[in-house]
Amino acid sequence: MKKQKVIINGDRLSRTLEEFADFGRTENNGVTRLSLSEEDRQVRDYFCSCCKELGMTIQVDDMGNIYATLAGLENKPPIVMGSHMDTVKKGGRFDGILGVAAGLEVVRTLVENNFQPKIPIMIVNFTNEEGARFEPSMMSSGVLSGKFEKSLMLQKTDSEGNTFENALDEIGYAGDEAVRLKEATAFLELHIEQGPILERESLTIGVVECVLGMVCYEIEVTGESDHAGTTPMNMRKDAFFTANTLIMEARQKLAMLHDELVFTMGRVNVLPNIHTVIPNKVVFSLEARHKDPKVIKQVEEIIAGFATNGSENDCEIQVKKLWDRNTVWFDESICDLLEQSTISLGLPYKRMVSGAGHDAQFIASYIPTAMIFVPSINGKSHCEEELTAWEDCEKGVNVLLETVLTIQSK
Amino acid sequence: MKKQKVIINGDRLSRTLEEFADFGRTENNGVTRLSLSEEDRQVRDYFCSCCKELGMTIQVDDMGNIYATLAGLENKPPIVMGSHMDTVKKGGRFDGILGVAAGLEVVRTLVENNFQPKIPIMIVNFTNEEGARFEPSMMSSGVLSGKFEKSLMLQKTDSEGNTFENALDEIGYAGDEAVRLKEATAFLELHIEQGPILERESLTIGVVECVLGMVCYEIEVTGESDHAGTTPMNMRKDAFFTANTLIMEARQKLAMLHDELVFTMGRVNVLPNIHTVIPNKVVFSLEARHKDPKVIKQVEEIIAGFATNGSENDCEIQVKKLWDRNTVWFDESICDLLEQSTISLGLPYKRMVSGAGHDAQFIASYIPTAMIFVPSINGKSHCEEELTAWEDCEKGVNVLLETVLTIQSK
Repeated sequence: MKKQKVIINGDRLSRTLEEFADFGRTENNGVTRLSLSEEDRQVRDYFCSCCKELGMTIQVDDMGNIYATLAGLENKPPIVMGSHMDTVKKGGRFDGILGVAAGLEVVRTLVENNFQPKIPIMIVNFTNEEGARFEPSMMSSGVLSGKFEKSLMLQKTDSEGNTFENALDEIGYAGDEAVRLKEATAFLELHIEQGPILERESLTIGVVECVLGMVCYEIEVTGESDHAGTTPMNMRKDAFFTANTLIMEARQKLAMLHDELVFTMGRVNVLPNIHTVIPNKVVFSLEARHKDPKVIKQVEEIIAGFATNGSENDCEIQVKKLWDRNTVWFDESICDLLEQSTISLGLPYKRMVSGAGHDAQFIASYIPTAMIFVPSINGKSHCEEELTAWEDCEKGVNVLLETVLTIQSK
Repeated sequence: MKKQKVIINGDRLSRTLEEFADFGRTENNGVTRLSLSEEDRQVRDYFCSCCKELGMTIQVDDMGNIYATLAGLENKPPIVMGSHMDTVKKGGRFDGILGVAAGLEVVRTLVENNFQPKIPIMIVNFTNEEGARFEPSMMSSGVLSGKFEKSLMLQKTDSEGNTFENALDEIGYAGDEAVRLKEATAFLELHIEQGPILERESLTIGVVECVLGMVCYEIEVTGESDHAGTTPMNMRKDAFFTANTLIMEARQKLAMLHDELVFTMGRVNVLPNIHTVIPNKVVFSLEARHKDPKVIKQVEEIIAGFATNGSENDCEIQVKKLWDRNTVWFDESICDLLEQSTISLGLPYKRMVSGAGHDAQFIASYIPTAMIFVPSINGKSHCEEELTAWEDCEKGVNVLLETVLTIQSK
């Protein structure tokens, strides 16, 4: 089949994104559309109706993942585009939904150009990527890839005690295990960057090579609570001062490892947290991400040193690994295709990494996969201020279309 | 009147302390006896009955302060002993109650020795020293001294919305403003040290010269929340890292000021406190105590520098003074009397300061006042482990008795 030169309709894309944002739009122009909520049901229904209008067939699997397929002339595994339609509470209008709307816009463009695909084209919506209502995140792509066990996931509950299984039944999207995505020619996920790099470097497209490996630790410093007014400084076991010194030393050591290493102490709890009482406990998280497992290993060696080096004030330091994940490398030939598409469209781009997790990282375990990033203004996501310029969305979807056409024409 | 050589009954004192501890005793041998609670009513009733048995007259003022008076041969302002009978939640068996039980034991000793006082002897129980149920602490001695306004205090509420005024009515201890303590020959408060100094230095008695002046600030560091995985280190405004550096520098500067300065960051809150999100805010308390106002002024200069020096990461730093108090110096001649009594009993002692607040610091504004400290094992107080050896309690009360007798004999 000969490759056709077509481009998508940017106005229609932005209208579609705004239509989707109406399902759960917040006062400040963000979106709250928790997984399996009423808003999720509505956006699913609307998405399915849009796909049916295009002559696509809809299937839903046992995790509620939706597959909309445009038949191909040949009986080959589909080219899959997509992402997720759920959001965090007070999230934005782009995270996840862009990848689904992009698939829709690609198919609309093909259909209106009377393009008869050789290979079937599929749009997928993965259930519960965010994990905001039911943990863990990337739940359903995790089940597809064998990372999570379905029976355990069905029993996950939200903050009100509702199970995932019941919630899925209630919105009418409990489907058939037999239709799960099993094989595909490629999986292409367009997503907002959720970081500041593309914007700072004035680039439009990120060809994502991997999702960073990471470790997450919890460090607990135990001292002794005493009266803040009556205990001389040299008789204290101040857990907060010990943590303060420890964290300063850790920051200095971690900063020396590699300039692309990111590390964060995002959760810090001090006990008893009373201004007149010397803290007897500080518990903080330390997570670090890097593509090179050797760098992550060095991070772990530094953290292991916390407990063995002892501390000022004789506080006790305990270190617990909460979890880790290895770097997931995307398919090199798919990355190359995305890069060629970007170049052919004359768009400024870079190959980059994803610090955030995505459904693509699980799907990559059994399907040739890669991701396209478009810039996040001020690097913001998971908030109402989340924003990507319409023209950047449009350019990203054109890269997606170009890549789909290239694969079709091979 | 000739000074008599008598000593108190240590067994009776410890029995009395254990009897008092029965009103609100916890599983772990501590005491929960919140101000104006049912347990407080019971201990007040029992205290009053003990005093009446000794021929003392009971008066209650409009803040619920109880005054038990043993008449004197001369119509002079009384020698007052006492402290408070309320505790914090899961507090100990000694804080406050020791000073009241001590007064009772002194009077019992005098009565059984047929001692006829020249100057009336009074035991006082101050209402709500702890401020654990109704803030502020030292509420009623504060009203007596004019530090707090009665009408405002009556409207203070506990966590369930009950006013102080109603709670006082309910336990039947709302008395007459006319009987408030207005003048006295001396006020002597025996109290546990609540710190580790006497124990570490193997001393039995602390002659307390002052209650330390202090300042308490709240420091707010504001950065920007971003995704912990996608934001390069050099593009972050991490409020926690900024606070970490700031606190380290502050500790180093404060430690240089004076070796008796104590400073504490007891309350630390990090927002949004999610391990995958870079903190956008850290709010922490910084309180410091020292007897010399010049040192406190230097502390305040260091804190003022936080906001003006700027910070790494362009975080914003705001500094707010929550409160301060000046050092309260006790009556020098009363301190001398306490010291002489201690020496005459052959007890190891030191002159020292109180880092904690006490009713005595308010009463000192209009009555010649000083305090006696006895050792706190491991420096603990406000907890079930709070402990002072019976023999140290006994020695403290003997210093009190000796001092009362000395004043009587003058």
